[in-house]
Amino acid sequence: MSLSDHPADHPANHFELLATDGPARTGRLATPHGVVRTPAFMPVGTAGAMKGVHWREVREAGADIVLGNTYHLMLRPGAERIASLGGLQRFTGWNGPMLTDSGGFQVMSLAELRKVNEDAVTFRSHIDGLKVELSPERSIEVQRLLGSDIAMQLDECVRLPAERADIERAMRLSLRWAERSKRAFETAPDGYMLFGIVQGGDVPELRQASARGLVDIGFHGYAIGGLAVGEPQAVMLGMIEETAPHLPADRPRYLMGVGTPEDLLEAVKRGIDMFDCVMPTRNGRHGVAFTRFGQVNLRNARHADDPRPLDEASSWPSTRSVARAYLHHLVKSGETLGAMLLSEINIAYYQRLMQDIRDAVSAGTFANFYERTRTEWAAGDIAPH
Amino acid sequence: MSLSDHPADHPANHFELLATDGPARTGRLATPHGVVRTPAFMPVGTAGAMKGVHWREVREAGADIVLGNTYHLMLRPGAERIASLGGLQRFTGWNGPMLTDSGGFQVMSLAELRKVNEDAVTFRSHIDGLKVELSPERSIEVQRLLGSDIAMQLDECVRLPAERADIERAMRLSLRWAERSKRAFETAPDGYMLFGIVQGGDVPELRQASARGLVDIGFHGYAIGGLAVGEPQAVMLGMIEETAPHLPADRPRYLMGVGTPEDLLEAVKRGIDMFDCVMPTRNGRHGVAFTRFGQVNLRNARHADDPRPLDEASSWPSTRSVARAYLHHLVKSGETLGAMLLSEINIAYYQRLMQDIRDAVSAGTFANFYERTRTEWAAGDIAPH
Repeated sequence: MSLSDHPADHPANHFELLATDGPARTGRLATPHGVVRTPAFMPVGTAGAMKGVHWREVREAGADIVLGNTYHLMLRPGAERIASLGGLQRFTGWNGPMLTDSGGFQVMSLAELRKVNEDAVTFRSHIDGLKVELSPERSIEVQRLLGSDIAMQLDECVRLPAERADIERAMRLSLRWAERSKRAFETAPDGYMLFGIVQGGDVPELRQASARGLVDIGFHGYAIGGLAVGEPQAVMLGMIEETAPHLPADRPRYLMGVGTPEDLLEAVKRGIDMFDCVMPTRNGRHGVAFTRFGQVNLRNARHADDPRPLDEASSWPSTRSVARAYLHHLVKSGETLGAMLLSEINIAYYQRLMQDIRDAVSAGTFANFYERTRTEWAAGDIAPH
Repeated sequence: MSLSDHPADHPANHFELLATDGPARTGRLATPHGVVRTPAFMPVGTAGAMKGVHWREVREAGADIVLGNTYHLMLRPGAERIASLGGLQRFTGWNGPMLTDSGGFQVMSLAELRKVNEDAVTFRSHIDGLKVELSPERSIEVQRLLGSDIAMQLDECVRLPAERADIERAMRLSLRWAERSKRAFETAPDGYMLFGIVQGGDVPELRQASARGLVDIGFHGYAIGGLAVGEPQAVMLGMIEETAPHLPADRPRYLMGVGTPEDLLEAVKRGIDMFDCVMPTRNGRHGVAFTRFGQVNLRNARHADDPRPLDEASSWPSTRSVARAYLHHLVKSGETLGAMLLSEINIAYYQRLMQDIRDAVSAGTFANFYERTRTEWAAGDIAPH
């Protein structure tokens, strides 16, 4: 069955494509809690909180949408509790668009004694050891209780490298779970969205089969999952190239769990609209800043006596005003403020990059922006003080 | 020798008493980096950073002055380094008034193998184990390198309970170190200040002898040290009552390392002008909020489903808007944001309390404010949801 055979089944489209420049796109996605400008980077607030960053700073940095992790939130404080408190946006005070993952990926990486069968994945909670069952239907129920603007189908993600047979089995199971997820989502109010997830590891024909299968089922948007799980960047980019052309041009495309600023630039070049990653906050906690000059490790002794800011031309106050020597001291001393400042600086850098990308695509100058940005990163940090 | 015998020796006065209400006072202390409204509470930025709080939030909360710990900063990143980077205010970006302690108290509590003799205290750094000598002269030199607006003399603080002979020996040594500190401070530029520290444990006549000795030497201001080190509150308040009348009325009085909001209210009532304590941030990290209703432990299960803020009438945004259920979740999950929010909320509460105290003393209504505030604290938290 092709897409055109099932027009009635295809859910309403809340995505508007504003401009393209080659495969690169810019648009706007309307959600019940506000508009998301794409390409969009979603900072990750795992357990209902960004690590080391206030929500007000996430907003000021320019983020339109953030990601919450279903696995963490269903275990603590619990989906029913968050629902009774008015949903995740109100509970956290973020009050903007939120996407939640299905919980499946974290079950694979965090939970103990997990077991996948046709019906569901069962596991023991990493918090209290209690046995939990997560089916496609329960994942949708939990995400609806959380009140997320964009829910994700439950899928099975295989860590690479893997045998083709394992990749295909997980991909086929994910497709069947996609259908069940869609049925479970039918009662959601207008405006809320469900995305399907393309699986298929590093095998082009499996990726294509997965994409076609999902498009036949019909979703508000499409994610590419199972990448950035250990494969080289070239493999990841190759898989995007194999998959994107098989996704409808008028729907948002979301590359899950990616990545470095370079990954983002390369993926946008290949037609991706949305991203999420813990890298800005995680690297910030480890003393690393993302800047126009590439990654800067503040632990390095070269910064100890350097009164200059990370980037005096930055539009973000902490990036252009806090001394490298001070950041170095905070990181070396294990002061929370070091992680706080670098996490905020990194989120702001990612958001600025997405804004610059959106502007370049709108202006039809993406190729130029792409070259200039890569050249700046490659030139590296400013000379030592 | 009395104060009047040595007018020439007595340093310039930068303190202006604006109003009194019984022994309670309000005034303004002019420092090279700005004016401090008193009574003032100084949040503690131990190693050049407030734990879990941005400087901009400390400022917004209403703090005029903060405290830095000489012991931590001299060991890392080093006083000479901070001096070459333009001083502590510029290094940290706080850019406002700063008081530094002498380093002595932390040597007693943190360093290993410490040894006190007439000349200096020697110890091993808790960071790298290197042997360090801290004399009264070196303490002043370090504080001058840090660029602190208010330096403290090196003293020896005895933990209570202690033998009278030990208390007296430490008090006499502290007096001799006070003289040496003053001589070492003679070359400081105009506007910078040095405070002497009253010791004498819980022995009234030793406290009085210490105060008289310091006043004879002559300082810009006077601190009461060696309290809040294990004695009951009544002993602490009694010692303030024994000491304050022996300090010049036209100079600021600083009660070191104190304390709870109740301690502050009681000490202001007895004529104290300045305070510092880690309690707002430390208790915040342990899930405890200071509020109009007394201390509220957010770990308590009663908050798990409570959508109400800590205090809907508060002037601080996070206090009146963040749900108790969310704070409970963050604290239980060990999320940094929980400590960040509660530290900010507590600093704001302390600053609001000081502002209200200043207003009450100005208006001549301190007794009324004192009673009302204690009644609110005693009434406890709002009824469970």
